[in-house]
Amino acid sequence: MGSRAHRVSLGDTWSQRVHPDIESERRRQAFDVERLTNLLDRGAQNTALRREVESLFRSDPAFNHIHSHFMTQSERYEAAVRKTFLMHKMARRLGWPEDGLEFAYASRALSEDVSFGVHSVATKAIESLGSEEQIAKWVPLCKTYQIITTYAQTEMGHGTYLQGLETEATYDAATQEFVIHSPTRTATKWWPGDLGESATHALVMAQLICSGARQGMHAFMVPIRSLQDHTPLPGITAGNIGPKMGLESIDNGFLRLDHVRVPRENMLNRFAQVLPDGTYVRLGTAQSNYLPMVVTRVDILSRAVLPGLQKACVIATRYSVVRRQSRLRPSDPEAKILDYQTQQQKILLPLAMSYAFHFHVVSISEFFRRAYDAIRSKDVSLLPELHALTTGTKAMMADFCTHGVELCRRACGGHGYSKLSGLPSLLTQVVASCTYEGENTVLYLQVARFLVKSYHQAWEAAGPVSQKPLPPSVAYLAQVHPAKCPAQSTANFLCPELYTMAWAHMAARLTEGSVRHLQMLIQSGADRHEAWNQTSVLLLQAAKAHCYYLTVKSFKEALEKLDNEPAIQQVLKRLCDLFALHGILTDSGNFLYDGFLSGPQVDMVRTAYLDLLPLIRKDAVLLTDAFDFTDQCLNSALGCYDGNVYERLFQWAQMSPSNNSQEKPAYEKYIRPLIQSRGSKL
Amino acid sequence: MGSRAHRVSLGDTWSQRVHPDIESERRRQAFDVERLTNLLDRGAQNTALRREVESLFRSDPAFNHIHSHFMTQSERYEAAVRKTFLMHKMARRLGWPEDGLEFAYASRALSEDVSFGVHSVATKAIESLGSEEQIAKWVPLCKTYQIITTYAQTEMGHGTYLQGLETEATYDAATQEFVIHSPTRTATKWWPGDLGESATHALVMAQLICSGARQGMHAFMVPIRSLQDHTPLPGITAGNIGPKMGLESIDNGFLRLDHVRVPRENMLNRFAQVLPDGTYVRLGTAQSNYLPMVVTRVDILSRAVLPGLQKACVIATRYSVVRRQSRLRPSDPEAKILDYQTQQQKILLPLAMSYAFHFHVVSISEFFRRAYDAIRSKDVSLLPELHALTTGTKAMMADFCTHGVELCRRACGGHGYSKLSGLPSLLTQVVASCTYEGENTVLYLQVARFLVKSYHQAWEAAGPVSQKPLPPSVAYLAQVHPAKCPAQSTANFLCPELYTMAWAHMAARLTEGSVRHLQMLIQSGADRHEAWNQTSVLLLQAAKAHCYYLTVKSFKEALEKLDNEPAIQQVLKRLCDLFALHGILTDSGNFLYDGFLSGPQVDMVRTAYLDLLPLIRKDAVLLTDAFDFTDQCLNSALGCYDGNVYERLFQWAQMSPSNNSQEKPAYEKYIRPLIQSRGSKL
Repeated sequence: MGSRAHRVSLGDTWSQRVHPDIESERRRQAFDVERLTNLLDRGAQNTALRREVESLFRSDPAFNHIHSHFMTQSERYEAAVRKTFLMHKMARRLGWPEDGLEFAYASRALSEDVSFGVHSVATKAIESLGSEEQIAKWVPLCKTYQIITTYAQTEMGHGTYLQGLETEATYDAATQEFVIHSPTRTATKWWPGDLGESATHALVMAQLICSGARQGMHAFMVPIRSLQDHTPLPGITAGNIGPKMGLESIDNGFLRLDHVRVPRENMLNRFAQVLPDGTYVRLGTAQSNYLPMVVTRVDILSRAVLPGLQKACVIATRYSVVRRQSRLRPSDPEAKILDYQTQQQKILLPLAMSYAFHFHVVSISEFFRRAYDAIRSKDVSLLPELHALTTGTKAMMADFCTHGVELCRRACGGHGYSKLSGLPSLLTQVVASCTYEGENTVLYLQVARFLVKSYHQAWEAAGPVSQKPLPPSVAYLAQVHPAKCPAQSTANFLCPELYTMAWAHMAARLTEGSVRHLQMLIQSGADRHEAWNQTSVLLLQAAKAHCYYLTVKSFKEALEKLDNEPAIQQVLKRLCDLFALHGILTDSGNFLYDGFLSGPQVDMVRTAYLDLLPLIRKDAVLLTDAFDFTDQCLNSALGCYDGNVYERLFQWAQMSPSNNSQEKPAYEKYIRPLIQSRGSKL
Repeated sequence: MGSRAHRVSLGDTWSQRVHPDIESERRRQAFDVERLTNLLDRGAQNTALRREVESLFRSDPAFNHIHSHFMTQSERYEAAVRKTFLMHKMARRLGWPEDGLEFAYASRALSEDVSFGVHSVATKAIESLGSEEQIAKWVPLCKTYQIITTYAQTEMGHGTYLQGLETEATYDAATQEFVIHSPTRTATKWWPGDLGESATHALVMAQLICSGARQGMHAFMVPIRSLQDHTPLPGITAGNIGPKMGLESIDNGFLRLDHVRVPRENMLNRFAQVLPDGTYVRLGTAQSNYLPMVVTRVDILSRAVLPGLQKACVIATRYSVVRRQSRLRPSDPEAKILDYQTQQQKILLPLAMSYAFHFHVVSISEFFRRAYDAIRSKDVSLLPELHALTTGTKAMMADFCTHGVELCRRACGGHGYSKLSGLPSLLTQVVASCTYEGENTVLYLQVARFLVKSYHQAWEAAGPVSQKPLPPSVAYLAQVHPAKCPAQSTANFLCPELYTMAWAHMAARLTEGSVRHLQMLIQSGADRHEAWNQTSVLLLQAAKAHCYYLTVKSFKEALEKLDNEPAIQQVLKRLCDLFALHGILTDSGNFLYDGFLSGPQVDMVRTAYLDLLPLIRKDAVLLTDAFDFTDQCLNSALGCYDGNVYERLFQWAQMSPSNNSQEKPAYEKYIRPLIQSRGSKL
């Protein structure tokens, strides 16, 4: 089987033999794994191309990742730059097209160890915000790596609230330059990736001041390090911000600008420009400057967040059919831990999420592609919905994928705490996404604002008839849902129409409840800002329910397109059911609150949910095999395709520096004096 | 104010001045912080002693922790051994009593950087399981550090299920020795702390085989490294298990034993012994061997888990009154983030937990002290309840404290991802406790078994009259609770009697529901083991509700003893209310399910909960000041007493190795060739 050979590790004799406990899981073939892989890749030709690219890295020892578990942050950074450099050399040799899938597949193969991710973000920002001349000037320099550009937005004292950014770009009409300046310590740019040690340029987001007026945040191309010898240019102080929870291979940095001058042409001016005399001309809406963030959010979901969850599922599932613990019956041998209901609950939910979010991202990306070109051409009619969709999806996926990775990690017991499992670094990588590119709570509240606005639009005529139809993602707010769930049996709850409607009902009710709470506070004398703050816990709930609804809906619609793949449709439908019903159980209070569900109906949901677990469990290994990650890319002692968990864990642990050093400084200097002092002579 | 001088950092000029945004928080003195500190310390004389011990470490630069943020795992280990060595030197010089509070306070001051924690666990295990002669022989050697002993229980392939341990101790009557042996790779001892590089001895838990019969797990003292030169003794293979998510200063290790012989006297024999001829004599119950784990669980809660949460609260709260972001009203300056309702929700729950668990641990510890001596004297009547209480409390506190630390960490935005915040290492330290000393899910299911048993005991006579009264912690299972909550107003929900009863009702109902589910499955043909597995998701819920109930009850009872401290009682009662009501809201489905609460009553709970947030917020800084952690012990750029967040973060970041190195290998080797190749000449 081609895909199997593709996945297996090489080089160890014991890895030639697949562990019988995982082999037996693969014997059952309720569906064609290869066809599911093709579906996830969006075409068999993509699967083939991906494997071709991955095999380039597999056969080259320069791309071995195992040692990364033992490296310091500085070593991780250097190793990633090295691999990225070798990848680009390879790409040029093989003539990969600049925007081809090859680079995406190469990034996947390199896993976390790939540099210049923020350089790509900055490049896309130039494409979003630059005029055609600016794009023609800067983008080729970026794409051929003649410059490395960081996207410098966040400051030490200012993150998600962009109006609070302190960095200033003051226009000097005398020289036709902008003076870029960090007026305070808190104005120091802090966190941008690729800034600490790599970047030659920074796309600096700064408050534009021209003709004495403040015009809000704009983007400026600023050279920061010499192209000759990489030393900081005059007025620039830059460096590394130090040790982090994860993402060690990235050089997150800081940047202080002391009256740094750049020519007038360096302000990106697709949506606004400053004339030579200092006149400010707006060419689009103020929101346009947020476009790069929308682009980035869609990107990170499919490239950084979702694969992290999927890998964690692969590792935890494979480990859970090899690990045996305790007995289901006193006379049995020790059981595979995946046969325990509680372990199924832990692992199969993240698995269901992995598929749910895959289809949701596909759906969002399609909408994004339609909307993006329109927005760049200054038709911003789709921007509010695009913003709400990407914002909410980013927040929800970051939250849920983090939760899912951590469930998988803890489901591996003590070994999940070892970095050699690969799980800690997946966790620290994914959890970062809860904060970067917009802190999740702030993002959810932006979604809530869109919901409240849409709700008013739908119901302001004191009825369901609205002047302008609502955007599709919030159309349900204008619909009247049944006050009580019509389900009468456990089987009824396995109907995607029914549970999608249940989620729509709940999201709409929470939105309505938030609106009423706002109104009540305003009527009792609060101003609307205070009322908003005092309703924010409720608004958060509404936004979360809305995002859950959208994900269930995307999954349901994806299933409907699989009528010609009934076997795959059946296994995926179980995952969709599990995802929707688990959410209902977790949030049952909100479904019971208004009598939409009754107590006996909650029992039916629970029965349906618990019955799904053993069904999905049977296909779990194949469902994770379908993601088709190579062992190299998983970089996990617990998660390799062959299931030889303990051999690999033991072998990798032997590589620890202290196991290979003759020096024992702690013993010589402290332990020996301690134990040989006989209790008194220290 | 003495305590303030005690807390403040020294040495930086800007730290002489407290940030006005945090100073203003301390101006309000609704209660006496010093008295609350004394209450937490259980006496003003303890506070004084603690500060005296802490000041020894504060004035000595050898105990500075800042550099630990930049160290590798090996360096962290060496630094911790060094500090521990210096601490013992100091202790001997000052003549600290062996079991005095001084050592506990020194450990607190040293924070994570203290070694030989598992050596203490092993020492206590010898005291629990050894005969008086064995205690007299081994314990003084341990306490004076003439030997360092690890507690070697967990194996590579076997964790919480102790019957599955593979290591064997076969008695050889000919030589009167035990032959200790690892028969397989999975039998390798894996994870014990202090084993990787420090220990001279291991207390090995192994399956005893004598006279051809297997007698279950017993404890054996095994020398593993030479007392002369620390080399492994014959038959011993030991080393470090490699990189981990956290706990870097501990040398978690592996141990393989190849037919290692120890004398018959090395089996700890308080509860069982092997006579010279190989006859096995049981002197207590089989459960007695679990006693060391009970001891350890109580210990880790108060020493490792709870302080982690408390520190995270201090850091996040102080940061949240200095950090300003966005505006509550357009005309206002940027607001302190703690003024946002969503931020209050994130931070005040962990704060409430910090106090709830403090009082719960005090209550459990008191019960433990009563029960422990009885059990060592072979009166095991209190063992089942002690086991259930410590097991459940360990699982719940590990779960909730992890959740709380992560809430605090994320509440600090991007800076919470920097190790310099101190939060990542608190998280990785606390989350480990979800797995070590018994995996949480397994522990909750042990609690569930106790609940089911107690439920049967209470109701087997088909009524609430039971032959034998239930243990106090489960007495509520025999009581009849009102079917509907009598609360009629928001104010009613601020009554501790009422919400404690609500939790008792819910825990009892879930226990009853689990019992019925078990019966239903058995009646429909499942055997009782299968029925148990298929009910385990429900059983888990019941156990969690029971643990929540116990915590609320402990907090309520602690408040009742504070009548002579009305100001402190009032602020703490708000935290108790918040803890209880937050739990009800989170789990509202289980309260609504059977009509115990109605929808309007859930609204009342929510109103009461939301109204508590701004009240507690006013006292938040003082409530965290009361924990009285020194800046040195917090080791956080965000959390210092003076609130000078940005100055410290900037200063600490400058210490990053790459900011202080002239070598730029990544640039020289890869970036320069990349950017200077002009797009083609790589």
